[in-house]
Amino acid sequence: MTQNIYDNPEFFTGYSALPRSVQGLDAAPEWPALRAMLPDLQGRHVVDLGCGFGWFCRFAREAGARSVLGIDVSENMLARAREMTADPAIAYRRADLETLTLTEGAFDLVYSSLTLHYLSNLAALFDTIHQALGPGGRFVFSIEHPIYTAPSAPGWASNAWPVNGYLTEGPRTTDWLAKGVIKQHRTIATYLNLLILTGFSVLRIEEWGPTDAQIAAHPEWACERERPPFLLVSGGR
Amino acid sequence: MTQNIYDNPEFFTGYSALPRSVQGLDAAPEWPALRAMLPDLQGRHVVDLGCGFGWFCRFAREAGARSVLGIDVSENMLARAREMTADPAIAYRRADLETLTLTEGAFDLVYSSLTLHYLSNLAALFDTIHQALGPGGRFVFSIEHPIYTAPSAPGWASNAWPVNGYLTEGPRTTDWLAKGVIKQHRTIATYLNLLILTGFSVLRIEEWGPTDAQIAAHPEWACERERPPFLLVSGGR
Repeated sequence: MTQNIYDNPEFFTGYSALPRSVQGLDAAPEWPALRAMLPDLQGRHVVDLGCGFGWFCRFAREAGARSVLGIDVSENMLARAREMTADPAIAYRRADLETLTLTEGAFDLVYSSLTLHYLSNLAALFDTIHQALGPGGRFVFSIEHPIYTAPSAPGWASNAWPVNGYLTEGPRTTDWLAKGVIKQHRTIATYLNLLILTGFSVLRIEEWGPTDAQIAAHPEWACERERPPFLLVSGGR
Repeated sequence: MTQNIYDNPEFFTGYSALPRSVQGLDAAPEWPALRAMLPDLQGRHVVDLGCGFGWFCRFAREAGARSVLGIDVSENMLARAREMTADPAIAYRRADLETLTLTEGAFDLVYSSLTLHYLSNLAALFDTIHQALGPGGRFVFSIEHPIYTAPSAPGWASNAWPVNGYLTEGPRTTDWLAKGVIKQHRTIATYLNLLILTGFSVLRIEEWGPTDAQIAAHPEWACERERPPFLLVSGGR
């Protein structure tokens, strides 16, 4: 089973203080690019896998979604998400994504932000997502980019990002917000081929880096153009 | 216009001595993986963009292709390709791939091995390929992997491959076989999104690295697992 690091007190405290936790989606630099991949949400049924504090769930409702289901493994995060809304069209459910079940054909959009790279096993989840979507449904997700997750000792060296282990998939343990955070490294090919084998069409991918305007506002983000930190994917059913 | 480095005498001499030039496809470590992406060639019409010495053209005929058209910009390579076959079902044509025209719907497979990363402009070529394929046709190609082409000064450092400039697309000048060889760096997203926008379905991608058996036979290839040297793509019309 996947590590539930978000219920580690040290990690949760650190995560809760991140700009994207405090200020929401607009503090996530990749959000404009991810948002551009979304279908029109008006009247749609949406599920967010790894919903955290529920920022996207609330966004989806503001964008006209008819219902939103937020799913997360972390009790801490769901508790805070529930505090932040009284909207009866938003429901939260605690679940381990590796054993998730969803009602067949019940959704128009499955969304997942920076969650899938924590999961040890994606095949069953991708099947669940595919059957949960109706015809024309979309599966839009972001993950840490495989160039970012590959190295055994990630970090900059002389303004470059030394990559090793790219083709060796499996766990990577890093000390990010807490010691011993486990992420699963997979190649881009593994993600896309699994999507295709599950029955999805690849509609678009983006290897995210900051725009010129973002770098002007945040010069410290410029290094992210040297190697993308995030991979954004849109799949169609 | 794209640099025609293959007609540079120094480059041509060096290229002609490579195992894949002397011994053909079986000396190319990625060939088994690329071959596995091909459709059945029996009775098919095939075109090879960047055919070089014609090894794939001859393979395609041996695999039952009805006709094979090999296209290359290099007179040197085409001259040698023509010397190596008298098969009337194999034709060779000199053309710049950036201004190529092909008969509409005339082909079942468009194949291209390690050629597209030399081209400055792919959009027109992808359109040409799409219209040249009949329904169900395939476009199978390999390129140098963007992780491989990104760095301004490519090379190993402490068993890692330092990546920079990944999101900065454009020419990269390297000294490989000759000085001043110009390749075009593009992201994986750019290749795949162009394919999708042209009208292709992404059927499969592979970020190639050596198998265990290949490493046992060629221990010096083991480093290629640290970062893939090649990207293989199969698109369907």
